[in-house]
Amino acid sequence: MTTYTLTARVGRPYAETVEAVREQLAGAGFGVITEIDLRATLKQKLGVDVAPQVILGACRPELAHQALQADPSIAALLPCNVVVRALDEGTTLVEAFDPRAMMSLAGAAGADHPIHAVAADARARLAAALTALENS
Amino acid sequence: MTTYTLTARVGRPYAETVEAVREQLAGAGFGVITEIDLRATLKQKLGVDVAPQVILGACRPELAHQALQADPSIAALLPCNVVVRALDEGTTLVEAFDPRAMMSLAGAAGADHPIHAVAADARARLAAALTALENS
Repeated sequence: MTTYTLTARVGRPYAETVEAVREQLAGAGFGVITEIDLRATLKQKLGVDVAPQVILGACRPELAHQALQADPSIAALLPCNVVVRALDEGTTLVEAFDPRAMMSLAGAAGADHPIHAVAADARARLAAALTALENS
Repeated sequence: MTTYTLTARVGRPYAETVEAVREQLAGAGFGVITEIDLRATLKQKLGVDVAPQVILGACRPELAHQALQADPSIAALLPCNVVVRALDEGTTLVEAFDPRAMMSLAGAAGADHPIHAVAADARARLAAALTALENS
């Protein structure tokens, strides 16, 4: 586990987990606005085989707008990526870019900067979604 | 300017700069695999007006593959976002998520970890593309 992702280890197959992630993100108020099938992309471009995995770009527009008002450059870190990757037939890892790690980058902003409240909100929503996934 | 983006300030209108960015990225070996029109998205979802801006998700498959082999979690930070934002009628800002900042997140990897060579390659290519933009 890294210091820059929120993770959930799910005891369900990959395809089923991808759908469950979409549902949990929607429930947490995040739309999926980009989607990259990493396995398909790398197979097509390089002819290599990697584990089934997809990068879902999750965006909650209210939070994105607040974050951009606080720091326009934060667009370079958006949307919040949620990666779903097969570990084996029945186990899938879900990793979201941790908004707290985003803030460590945007750290020039002082601790009382409004961006931190936005990140805390995003983080709480994502963490709850991942916990729900593990328990579903 | 932030510590987590590479930036170029371009003395050309927004739409023209977006096209120039696409050309420079292609020249540097990056495909644009995601695209988010932030202005349109926020207008549609929230009814708010922000400056014309787009997030281009740039990916050089060879580098992405090498990075994933070194640290599978790095997928949460991919693709490398390049944001183009209008400052005024004739000035446009281009900001790319700095691969060096990515590495500061993935910093648990020691300084001799292969991921650093991948990031250095990506950074050099992006920096050259941005410099070319400013001088074009």
